[in-house]
Amino acid sequence: MTDSKTSGIVAKSYAVHSVGDKFELFDVQRRVPRDDDIVIKILFCGICHSDIHQAKNEWHNSTYPMVPGHEITGVVEQIGSKVQKVQIGDHVGVGCLVDSCLDCRACKRDLEQHCPDSCITYNSTELDKKTPTYGGYSTYVIVRDHFVCKIPKNLPLDGAAPLLCAGITTYSPMRQHNVGQNTRMAVVGLGGLGHMAVKFGIALGAHVTVISTSESKRNDAMKLGAHAFVISKDPEQLKDLARSFQFILDTVSAKHDVQALVQLLDFEGTFCMVGAPSEPIDFSATTIIFNRPRITGSIIGGMKETQEMLDFCGKHNITSDIELIRATPETLKTAYDRTMKADVKYRFVVDIQNSFA
Amino acid sequence: MTDSKTSGIVAKSYAVHSVGDKFELFDVQRRVPRDDDIVIKILFCGICHSDIHQAKNEWHNSTYPMVPGHEITGVVEQIGSKVQKVQIGDHVGVGCLVDSCLDCRACKRDLEQHCPDSCITYNSTELDKKTPTYGGYSTYVIVRDHFVCKIPKNLPLDGAAPLLCAGITTYSPMRQHNVGQNTRMAVVGLGGLGHMAVKFGIALGAHVTVISTSESKRNDAMKLGAHAFVISKDPEQLKDLARSFQFILDTVSAKHDVQALVQLLDFEGTFCMVGAPSEPIDFSATTIIFNRPRITGSIIGGMKETQEMLDFCGKHNITSDIELIRATPETLKTAYDRTMKADVKYRFVVDIQNSFA
Repeated sequence: MTDSKTSGIVAKSYAVHSVGDKFELFDVQRRVPRDDDIVIKILFCGICHSDIHQAKNEWHNSTYPMVPGHEITGVVEQIGSKVQKVQIGDHVGVGCLVDSCLDCRACKRDLEQHCPDSCITYNSTELDKKTPTYGGYSTYVIVRDHFVCKIPKNLPLDGAAPLLCAGITTYSPMRQHNVGQNTRMAVVGLGGLGHMAVKFGIALGAHVTVISTSESKRNDAMKLGAHAFVISKDPEQLKDLARSFQFILDTVSAKHDVQALVQLLDFEGTFCMVGAPSEPIDFSATTIIFNRPRITGSIIGGMKETQEMLDFCGKHNITSDIELIRATPETLKTAYDRTMKADVKYRFVVDIQNSFA
Repeated sequence: MTDSKTSGIVAKSYAVHSVGDKFELFDVQRRVPRDDDIVIKILFCGICHSDIHQAKNEWHNSTYPMVPGHEITGVVEQIGSKVQKVQIGDHVGVGCLVDSCLDCRACKRDLEQHCPDSCITYNSTELDKKTPTYGGYSTYVIVRDHFVCKIPKNLPLDGAAPLLCAGITTYSPMRQHNVGQNTRMAVVGLGGLGHMAVKFGIALGAHVTVISTSESKRNDAMKLGAHAFVISKDPEQLKDLARSFQFILDTVSAKHDVQALVQLLDFEGTFCMVGAPSEPIDFSATTIIFNRPRITGSIIGGMKETQEMLDFCGKHNITSDIELIRATPETLKTAYDRTMKADVKYRFVVDIQNSFA
């Protein structure tokens, strides 16, 4: 770290420089901290499936060099003169957002993720629409205080990292749709998102059923505390569950039969998608006319709700189940390959401090 | 009318006897009235598009002979000993339902249309699951009092007939989703359902935009009181409306681009289907993830809500715009043919009293 007061910080990072490139060491020149900035020494960063989509330009919007990573935890190393929410040494986290206008209708409703000018943590730009943002596979990040969350001291910072994306992505819709005591809910897919949804559901007092394509997930689901487990490919098992659930959270990003799942909703139940299959979703009109389901979706959460989620996790001792890795070009490639095969329980997290030694 | 006390009533009716059959005169033996029955002399019966689907067995569930008609208005001619809600001579209506268990969770919530044992007005059976039901192209019907609605005296019974299906089908979702003063709503399709939705929207104080495939509907929409009119096939017009509406009621039964319509919703807006296209509906996952729309559907309404709708119509002098016909095999065929081509403003109604003279 150089003298940040005058020249900003050079953060050692891992970047890809083009589609199909492997990760290489890359120096990110972080900005000179502003009055409302928090300088964070990054300790851990989760690997989200969307990192892979963007590193490989699968969403056709990638700019390079790219330093992925939006599940960031670390320690406050320096604060701007106007920062009041944290002190040096505090445990903090940064998720998918690093700035927004804070003035639009969405921002005023604490829904910064829906601000038309929101700045994404990487593969995006700052509010000036020019300066590129670089993510958390990096030793330092400097973020406007509003977009930094406090992490309860009792939570380990490695398992807490995925809360900043996988956590809030599942927590927010559960709160939007009033999941609580005895809510009959189902979680579709038991991966990084799904396993967080199970933990939240249990903590909220819901009756949680996991719906998966794979019998091999049964034990895992039960270990996480799920009350029931169903194979989605067995029509008989699904038939028994017709009109069972008040809330279904669908975390699956692969193509799958949404209609069969919507039919498991009780009258006026809610089906919420947080995965994003690339193929169109389809179902018959009668499916939605006869049972008044609400089919909806959700994406991450606002800053206020993200802090609420972290405080909830602190209270209930909830973190992500992770596999910790030291980043090298090879370990990152392996982690990406295994994540694509859903061969991880349930998130890879990069041990940043031990990756750039 | 024979002596109903002992032998029931023989009602002159029009029936189809097989797929592709033309309408023929048919005598329906109505049941001996029970203590809770209301004997209704039918004066008018609307022709709903679903009559056509069923007469032609397009839903693959038709039984013959079939007397269609579930938009029935008439006068009370006789009441059972336990009937208190109406008196002889009252104006009454019968819609799509003539009985249900009145004991299940749906019935107890005044949602008889969702009772698993509900008895449909025709092409169905009574609670005994054996006795066929026959609809309103008929001089008399005998219906359990719970399923008979009172029609405000100020409403003409011909224009009131379509309220029993087209009316409640559009009114119910508008109430479910809190359409009221200044709600920015759109009505997709300007037919029997759509024109009722426009009238209800105006009466509720909403700002109503009609979305249609056809420029020829512009004047009609404006005459009905709509505030704006948009051609759904013009991408530019739709683009200008992105994120405009809090509520969209889609009344279209033909295949159409639902995704383009959902994209017109404001944040957390509701898209409600009441038409039933036979082709699957499809849209991209991102459409529902980024703007939290609620995609849902609705079918008719319960008896309490149907009465509420009729009282609302009485208060606001709302009826359907209709073309009145005397039923003959030929006029019924013509009415069906023209309804299929959407060549009617906006509902054919059969003048029953003058059809069986």
